[in-house]
This record gives sequence, structure tokens and C-alpha cells, in this order.
Amino acid sequence: MTIHRLHSYALGHWHAGTGSPALLISAIDGTPVAEATSGGLDMAAMLAHAHHRGGPALRALTFHERASLLKALAQALTARKEELYALSVLTGATRADSWIDIDGGIGTLFVYASKGKRELPNETFLVDGAVEGLSRNGTFLGQHVRVPREGASVQINAFNFPVWGMLEKLAPAILGGMPVIAKPATATAYLAEKAARIIVESGILPEGAFQFVAGSTGDLLDHLTSQDMVGFTGSLATSTRLQANANILKNAVPFTAERDSLNCSILAPDIEPGSPDFDIFIKEVAREMTVKAGQKCTAIRRILLPASRMEAVQAALSKRLAGVAVGDPRLETTRMGPLASLDQRADVRAQIARLRAECDIVWGDPEAGGLSGVDAVKGAFVTPMLLAARDPRAAERPHDTEAFGPAATLLAYADLDEAVTLARKGDGSLAGSLVTRDPDMARRVVFGAGAFHGRLLILNADCAAESTGHGSPMPHLVHGGPGRAGGGEELGGIRAVMHHMQRVALQGSPAMLTALTKSYVKGTPEPVSPAHPFRLAFEELVPGQSFHSPERIITLEDIEHFAHFTGDTFYAHMDEEAVKGHPFFPGRVAHGYLLLAFAAGLFVEPKRGPVLANYGLDNLRFLKPVQPGESIRVRLTVKSKSPRNAAYGEVRWDVEITTGTGETAATYDLLTMNAYAETAATAAE
Amino acid sequence: MTIHRLHSYALGHWHAGTGSPALLISAIDGTPVAEATSGGLDMAAMLAHAHHRGGPALRALTFHERASLLKALAQALTARKEELYALSVLTGATRADSWIDIDGGIGTLFVYASKGKRELPNETFLVDGAVEGLSRNGTFLGQHVRVPREGASVQINAFNFPVWGMLEKLAPAILGGMPVIAKPATATAYLAEKAARIIVESGILPEGAFQFVAGSTGDLLDHLTSQDMVGFTGSLATSTRLQANANILKNAVPFTAERDSLNCSILAPDIEPGSPDFDIFIKEVAREMTVKAGQKCTAIRRILLPASRMEAVQAALSKRLAGVAVGDPRLETTRMGPLASLDQRADVRAQIARLRAECDIVWGDPEAGGLSGVDAVKGAFVTPMLLAARDPRAAERPHDTEAFGPAATLLAYADLDEAVTLARKGDGSLAGSLVTRDPDMARRVVFGAGAFHGRLLILNADCAAESTGHGSPMPHLVHGGPGRAGGGEELGGIRAVMHHMQRVALQGSPAMLTALTKSYVKGTPEPVSPAHPFRLAFEELVPGQSFHSPERIITLEDIEHFAHFTGDTFYAHMDEEAVKGHPFFPGRVAHGYLLLAFAAGLFVEPKRGPVLANYGLDNLRFLKPVQPGESIRVRLTVKSKSPRNAAYGEVRWDVEITTGTGETAATYDLLTMNAYAETAATAAE
Repeated sequence: MTIHRLHSYALGHWHAGTGSPALLISAIDGTPVAEATSGGLDMAAMLAHAHHRGGPALRALTFHERASLLKALAQALTARKEELYALSVLTGATRADSWIDIDGGIGTLFVYASKGKRELPNETFLVDGAVEGLSRNGTFLGQHVRVPREGASVQINAFNFPVWGMLEKLAPAILGGMPVIAKPATATAYLAEKAARIIVESGILPEGAFQFVAGSTGDLLDHLTSQDMVGFTGSLATSTRLQANANILKNAVPFTAERDSLNCSILAPDIEPGSPDFDIFIKEVAREMTVKAGQKCTAIRRILLPASRMEAVQAALSKRLAGVAVGDPRLETTRMGPLASLDQRADVRAQIARLRAECDIVWGDPEAGGLSGVDAVKGAFVTPMLLAARDPRAAERPHDTEAFGPAATLLAYADLDEAVTLARKGDGSLAGSLVTRDPDMARRVVFGAGAFHGRLLILNADCAAESTGHGSPMPHLVHGGPGRAGGGEELGGIRAVMHHMQRVALQGSPAMLTALTKSYVKGTPEPVSPAHPFRLAFEELVPGQSFHSPERIITLEDIEHFAHFTGDTFYAHMDEEAVKGHPFFPGRVAHGYLLLAFAAGLFVEPKRGPVLANYGLDNLRFLKPVQPGESIRVRLTVKSKSPRNAAYGEVRWDVEITTGTGETAATYDLLTMNAYAETAATAAE
Repeated sequence: MTIHRLHSYALGHWHAGTGSPALLISAIDGTPVAEATSGGLDMAAMLAHAHHRGGPALRALTFHERASLLKALAQALTARKEELYALSVLTGATRADSWIDIDGGIGTLFVYASKGKRELPNETFLVDGAVEGLSRNGTFLGQHVRVPREGASVQINAFNFPVWGMLEKLAPAILGGMPVIAKPATATAYLAEKAARIIVESGILPEGAFQFVAGSTGDLLDHLTSQDMVGFTGSLATSTRLQANANILKNAVPFTAERDSLNCSILAPDIEPGSPDFDIFIKEVAREMTVKAGQKCTAIRRILLPASRMEAVQAALSKRLAGVAVGDPRLETTRMGPLASLDQRADVRAQIARLRAECDIVWGDPEAGGLSGVDAVKGAFVTPMLLAARDPRAAERPHDTEAFGPAATLLAYADLDEAVTLARKGDGSLAGSLVTRDPDMARRVVFGAGAFHGRLLILNADCAAESTGHGSPMPHLVHGGPGRAGGGEELGGIRAVMHHMQRVALQGSPAMLTALTKSYVKGTPEPVSPAHPFRLAFEELVPGQSFHSPERIITLEDIEHFAHFTGDTFYAHMDEEAVKGHPFFPGRVAHGYLLLAFAAGLFVEPKRGPVLANYGLDNLRFLKPVQPGESIRVRLTVKSKSPRNAAYGEVRWDVEITTGTGETAATYDLLTMNAYAETAATAAE
């Protein structure tokens, strides 16, 4: 029998690799599935290809265009996802386990596609934060921007989520404009390679934007430049070894690590056995212990519970674990498949042995051979295992020993403060959870143990039905934790995109900053506008173009009329007597909304034109009250614009209302949707 | 003669240290200034003191309270700053050099004090980003928060800015709630120790919030926990050695490095010799070469200029450098003092020798002994030195050799693309500058070399008079750069505060997130409000309290009346014919500002009460147009509040306008200033 050879994708071609390959076997019965070697791959050339082909191609696209690539990729993977499911069972995954990996990974692409369109501009760079004044007269200012790093994102993934692990790292990199070199764990690389083939065969990503290594990284890390970065998921031991690479240190290559984590779940003292919340806790713990046969870096390893609940929890959990059918993941009746490999099983057994120095096994059996219907010798099957610390206050092993399988340890606490102390002993976790109905207890745990966690789930019956669960990293939320967990941050929506971009502080004159950021900075001389900017088509608008209104006097009659018309008869507008001694108002003042409405009356162009609608307003501040008899005038300036589709785009206007004495009464950003010339013309026909 | 012994400040006491001390000598004439040793200090105990005393004390304070500490510290240092200036001359600094270090450091404290008050809430934690929907029905949501890391900020500083270096790291740490252990470079520790004494003697910081090590770090790094962090400024060699510390890697201790940098300044092709911008370039380069005798990590080391300008630039720079009076920094006539030590001088000479393999010296002399009025043997004096690369396209040494003194290399380029290529060859710089008047040239440099820089200054006559200069890190802007520069980020306003806080993703029900973040999350059941929330005093307001208005029908008459009254006769409100075929509007619609004004009329409480003023509005979005004949109603909900002073605080309201059919027409945050009960009562008397 010829064993299927996995290929690497490098410099636009698939390579079989040379030298002695690693053998990849089925978790179910030990049959060979594939072999892989990266021997002969020119890692330096792969990096150069990413640098010179993939990077420039991605950076030429806007965030919205890159978001479209991610959406198309997600669709291409969806169309062929059954090919992935077919291979996924060989890793030991049930259909439900595979869903997390495969649909979860594809879902991450969809979320990044959507967030890229909604939360990022249709541009190739980002304006980061506010303009910073650095001078008395405002001729010298600062503004941060973000530009894509000009290297490759080298992504080293773990064996447990071959698809999700690759896609959750790829999505923010591509959106941020960085080409990817993906390196899956070899043990399950046959599944990752299939996903890589779908990606490459879809032809969606520009050449050089995605390369794939089946086998070891070879000397890849020794060639990284200061513009490259590494995203790593795996063990603490491997992570520290790679991070100490002389080339990585010398070139300050950003290294994001996601590694060991002894996550805890806390049952708060307010939850009574038999209550719906108690059942939620039991179900959550049992599920997190057994999903993916516990091979999740976010799985619950430490179960903290009031000493008084020990009996009830142990009984309920044991009962629930007893109902978990362990077996062939291809069978619909199976709830838990085998571990990913015999090596993994050996490791889990070794860690359980270590834990037993301080803990008793209260359910399950690490040596269980009695599982029916499976090959217990060649298949990496184990039962779920529940342990209990004999002296929870003194025990150390539960806080430093990760049995990467369906195992967790019960730790009884005396009061909630002790629970917080125990939670912190994990020394940095990816995820923690707390079942409580009491906001005060939640507050004590969140602010007592928050600094030791990347994510904290507060679970109870109010949200359990829709909860995504203790162990599920969400693309919207940060995934990573301090200390033992590696100190890295992945995901978290657009935050992960930022990791792929260099922040640069720009300094210069207002005009120069306006030109560089395409966003109007106050103090920039006005460009000549050929007409009222409301009459210019979207493509004709240039940041800085302004309209200066005539003035309008605000009379006492205006204020009273507005008050009675709208019903807003607040005393500060209506009652000279009541406003006496007011900390901000010298007497009766105009309504803020009257100023806004009059301002619009002063700048609006009534006839149909490119302005389609005012869709909102941001950052309105009333800076100086306007009294009856004072006049106002308005400056309306194009601040920035972002195309939305072929017909129209968003325009942000900088608006300033000043009084007759030249003082600023109010400032705000006005948001309008403006048509391109062609659309406006068509519509007007 | 007894040599002054520097002390460390540890566990609330000053310690002389034991063992063999290092001798610190005057840069001017080699006389001994002080000696220092950290022998005998219990580094583990210092960390524990920070963890158990300083950290809890700081974390109990709000950002505003910590900001007040920084302001008080700045004032205490200002009051005694002449003591610092008196010692600073011994480092070789002129009065102007010392101003950067001493007043620059104090200014950084003032900026952080001010930003802490203006840009952070009066709270002990931060809400980070928006609520993330994670479920179809909205019963399960995510929200990130930031909480202080519960360790110490270990700050290792360089010899060149003993005061600024310590204060620019201390300010964001204290504001973020982390205690500091400051370790200055030993060579100039006498000045840092004086600043430390002023800090300690002021009694402003809580015990344990500030400790100080005079001498070496000993085994400090071996005791760091996962909650500690390191801020390092110094050489690449030291940085990579410390970062590879096994304990730092194992515990994923964040390590921010700011190290070598071969900063460039580019003269763009549009600048003609003899023009004001040309003179600005010459002046800037000469100043950056000679300020602090060139011992600035941000100093200009590479001067990129069009080949055609070589003669003019070389002549103008040489002339300018010739005018720099090198001498005793205590003399008012001196423009440049000595290097910090004879060791530094030896190192500069060695690096110059290395550069000369590819460059010629065109001005100055590394061996110059002919400086008058100084002790050229015992004092670390050198002249400014200008070099020129013989083959600028092939030269490598100017891009990898940092002579940390008053030296820079001219590199001629053929066109702007080549200038960008040369700029990138620094392989990661803290700061770069460009003199140009042309926004297109600026764009090519910023987006061509931005990924290799932490900061880029675009200089010309429009901003030169107020420019803070190529080499000055500003507290408002990020200081740090990729690659050779260390890949770290310091300063950048509140960004640096964030580095001292752990981001935690919270998940749970809307009610739980509201309780934890003290910020109303939609979907939270309304707490019973004893009255219209506009009648409740600041302290009585609870996030979630709501007012539901009656409804109001919007008539065509209302719209026309509003249009004529305000002057806003936009066709979409007035002209049924013109609005036909509009992409968003089904017919004539009400003005957005009419909705806002009517909404205010529906929720306002007219009589004088705790609400002092509506001071602004954020995030207004019009989601559904309202047509004549439709009704609206308003929900007004307390979202969050932040005390501003003893009399009143800011309240943010979540406002939603719905139509008769229950659809959301608009949402926004309303901002009011609300009085405490006592203030309101006093005012009403």
C-alpha cells in the first residue's frame, strides 16, 4: 500500500518534500493515513515569495476588498466542507467536534469579512486615534496611523483544531494585509492540507498570500526579518524554545503565543443543588471535559466549588460523565471519540499519574481497556476522568499539570475569596467561568481574578440557552491569556488585525497631516471648492473643502417658539429666574437642538443633489451657551470619505458653529451618504 | 575623600548596598562623583512589597486619583528641579540638554496627569470597545474590560536620560495602577537617585508604589511572575540577553524593548538649496547630531539627500557644525558637552572606525584632542563628526553601525524610491524625518517606509517654528519602533497605560454585563426608578433606570413648519416629486433634527432639578426614516456615569426613538451634567 503523501504549497507550487517523512495515523485504529516531510523546501525563498509577491498584492487592496476575499474563501470552504468532515473523523473527532473545527473556522472567516466591511474604512491604511496637539498655535500636530507590516505572518498551529486554528490566524492577517505561511501540527496535517488545497484551488487569494508547510518548519525561523511575525499555538516548552531563537530576538519579531492553560470553572456559593443554574454548571463542566475528548486549550481543568457542594457536584458530574458514550467517532451514538494519537494518550496518562500524587480519581479510569466496540490497543481511547484534590488548599499539581484529555479536578473552597485565590493559582488562563446569579459575587471574581484571565464567562439561566460555552473562543473576543497561557492575544475582532499593522506616529503641519491621512485636520488651508460641497459628487469631494454660512440671529422668540413647538420647555431656556446661579449658564440660553436645526438650515442645499441623506452625527459637544440676541454661523468642511458601493459612499463632515464674537458654540461630525456623479445624474433623470 | 554612596529604596527604606561598588565619574573631568552597589538587596522581597503593598494601594484608586498623584509628583519635582540641574552637568549635559531630560520628564508627568483626567473615567477599570453580540436573541453578549496587571513594572533605563527615562516609564505605570521598580543605568545613577529621593521624600505615592535600585538588577528578573512586566531601554545586545531569561519566557513576562536605532532624515528632491526649507533641514540635522552630544536613541544617524545636493548639504552642514562650541557644559557659551564617559568615547571611536570602511569623514575628527578649555584626557570630549558613504547604494555599515555620539553619515540617493529603500535599510527605527513641501513625496515616504518606523516627522516651513524636532519623543505619541529598535511601544498617551492593564473578555447576560461594567447593556431588565431619572440626583442614578415617553404623532404640518422655521427645506422633507426613486426614502420624511427635538420634548423635565445641562451627544444614527402621520416615542436610559467634581458628574444616557410600529428610528448617547443631591438643593435655595 502506498501511503498518501501530503504536499507543501510554496512559491506557487505543491511540493512532496524530500527526506524521511513522518507517518500520520488514524486516532481510531492506528492505520496510516498519510506521511509528510518538508525536506527540501527553501524556507528563505518562501519568505521572499511572501515578501515580494503576496505582500504587495494584498497591500494594494483596501480593507473592504480584503474582506471580500475572506468572504469568498469562506464560501469556497463551505462548498467543499464535507471533504473536511470526512478526514476529520480520523483525528478522533465526532461530527459535533468537527463542527467546532470546520464550521467554527469558516464562521471566523465570515465574521472577519463582515467586521472588515463594517468596522474598517475602504482604505489601505487606518487613522489611529485622535489628532494630538503638540504646539501652542496649532501649526504642528501629531496623528497616529496604522500601515500593514511588510513581512509574512508565520502561523504555527496545534494538532487539535487543524482547520479552525489555521483560519482564525489567517483571517486577521489577510485583512491586515499580510501574507501567510501556515504550518499545521504534523499529527493531523492531512486535514489542514485538505483545507489548504481548497484555499489554493479556489484561486481567491493573490499568489504569494498563502503558503503551506506540511512537516517541520525547518530553518524558517532563522530567516525571519524584522517585518515578519509569528503566531504560535502549542505547548509552553515549544513556545519558549522558539521565542528564544536568536534571530527572533535580534530582529524583534513579534511572537504571539497561545499555550498551556489550566482553566477553571467556579460554582458560586449562591447556587443550590437542584436549581436550574446548578444543572447548567454540571452540564457545562461535563461538556467542556468531553468535547474533542478534552483536547482543547480552553477546556475546564479545575472545578472550584463550595466544600458544602462537594457531594452533590461529584454525584451529578459522575452521573453525567457515565452517560457519555465513548466510541468510534463515525457512529452517531458516539459522544466522545479517541484522543488524537497514542502518544497523546500516553501523555495524558502520565499527567494523570502526576495529579494522583495530590488527587483521587473519583470517576473514570486512565487505564480503561473495557471500552466496547473500539480497538483499545491501536485506537487512542480513554474514558472521561474526574479527580478530586485531597487537600485543595495545599494542592499544587492541579494548578500546574495539564492532562490534555477528558480530565478535570474538583477543588473545594471555603469561601469565595478562597475560590478567587485558587483561580489565580492557574497563573494565567485562557478562559474561566463562573456560575452565579449574584452580580456582587461575579464582581468579586471578575475583579479578583480578571488580571489572570483572557476571557471570563459568567453563566446562569439568563444566558445559558444562547451561551457559546466556556471553551469556545469567539472571533469577536480576545483569545489568549497572561502567564502560563502565553501572554498573547488572538482574535478580538479588529484588534487582531491591528497586530498585523505597524503603528506610526506622524508629525507635521495640519495641511500635511490632512494630505497624508485623507482626513481633514483643523488648521489646514481650505482648498478652493468649485461649488457648495453639497453640490459636489462623491468623487469630487476633497478633505478640507468648506462652506461658510451666513449668520443668523437667535431671538428670544425663536427660543420660546422652539420650546412650545417641540415641548422642550427646560427651565434653562424658559425661566430667567430659575437659571440664576446656574454653574454654566449666564441666563436663558438657546436649546442645543435649536442650534443644530438652525445650523442645518444655514448649510443645507434644498434641491436634489449628490447628498442623499444625513444618516447620523458623532462627537457633538456644546462648548458655549448661546443667549438670545446672539448670532451664529456655521463652517461645514469635508473631513473624510469612504466608498460604500458603486452608487454612493459615506462622507464625514467637520462642523463648527460659532457665535458672532467668534467663539465656538458647538462642534460635531455630520455623516451623510453621497452619490457618485453618475448615480446622482441617473436619479435626477 | 569619602565617595558619596548612592542608595537604593526598597521596602520603605534607603539601603547603601553591600559588596564592591561601581565608581561613577564626572564626564567633564573624570572626578569621582559617587559609587553604587545593589549588593544585599532582597530582590524577591522588593517584588513582594510591590505586589502586596504598592499594587493594592494603587488599584484602590481611580484613574483620576492616580492622575492627581502624577500632577503632585510633577509639582514636587518642579519645586526641586535645580537640584537635578546641578547634578546633570556632571553627565556632560548643557543646560539645554538637561532641560530635555529634567523638564521633559516632568512635562511627561503633567501630560499623563492631564490625559488621565480628560481621557479616562473616574473608575478603577476600563470598558474596552463595544458590546459584541454573540447570540440571535441578545441574551448572551461579550464586552471587553481592562483591569490593572497585579504585578510590578520593572523599568530598566539607559544612561542618557536619567530623569526623563525614569519618569516616562513611571507615569503610565502609575496611571495604570502598577507599582514601579526603577533601575537606572549605573553610569549616571547619581542623577536618577536624586530624582528618586525627591519622589520618595514628597510622600505622594503610596508605600510600595515606587522602589529604586542603584546598581545592578542582581537576580531581580529571575523572580518575576506572570503579572510583572519589564520596560527596557538600552542596547540590542543587553535586550536580547534579558529577553532570553528563562523565567521571563516561562512566565510570558511582557518585555518592552527600546534599543538601537539608526534613524534617518531625508531631504526630498523638491527642496532647493538656499530656500527656507533647506535651511530648516540643515539646522535640524545639525541640532539632532549635537544635542546631548548625539547620545539620543532618536538622533539622526543617516542623512539621505539627492545626489545633486551633496555639495550644498555638505558645505552647509560643515559650516553649521563648525559653529558648535564644544566645551564645559557649565559654561553658557558651550553648545555641546562631553560624552557621558570615557567608555562611551572609546565606543564611539570604535564605531566610527567601523564606519570608515565604507565612509569618509568630511567634517570633524574622532581623535581630536585640540579642544580648548577642557581636559581632553579625563573628560569624554569629542567633536561633531560628519561622514559620507563612498558608494551609498552598496554601503552596509551606515545601516547597522550606531556610533552613539555626535556623528552622522551622508548618503546620496538617485531618486525618491531609492531614498525609501535606504530608509528601510535601517531595519526598524524609532524616528525618521523628511523635509519636503510636496504631499505626494511625503505620501511615498510615509507609506513606503512607514512599516519600518515608530514615528515620522514631516518638516517644512509651515510647522518648523513650532516643531518639537526629529529627536523628541512626545508623551502624546508612541515612542518605539520595529526590528532593530526593539519592537516596543512606550508613551503614545493612554496607549501606554493600556500596556499595564490586562484585557479580559467578559461574556454573560445583558444584566450581568451591566452590573460588572457599570454601563447599561441593552436587554438588561429595567430596575425600578423611584422617579423620572431627570429628577434623581447624580448619586441616585443607576445604570438601566429608564423613562418611557408617551407618543407623539409627526404631521406633515410639523415637518413643513420645522422646515420653514429652521430654513432646512431639503427636498426629502419638502418635495414628494423630487424624492421619488430615492434609494433610502419611501417619500417625504421628517428631519432628523425634528426627531431629536421632539424626542427631547417628550423626555425633558422642565423644572429645575439635578440635570444641569445637555453638553453633547454621541453616536447618533438615523436607522429608519419617519413619514408624516407616523408616531414616535422615546426610551431614555441611564447608561453610565463618571463623577467630575464634588458638585456634579457626567451622565451618559442611552436613547432610542421608536416609531408606532415598534421599529427603531434613531439611537444615540445623550450627555448631561448632573448635580449631586446636596448641590442641587443648595442651588435651588
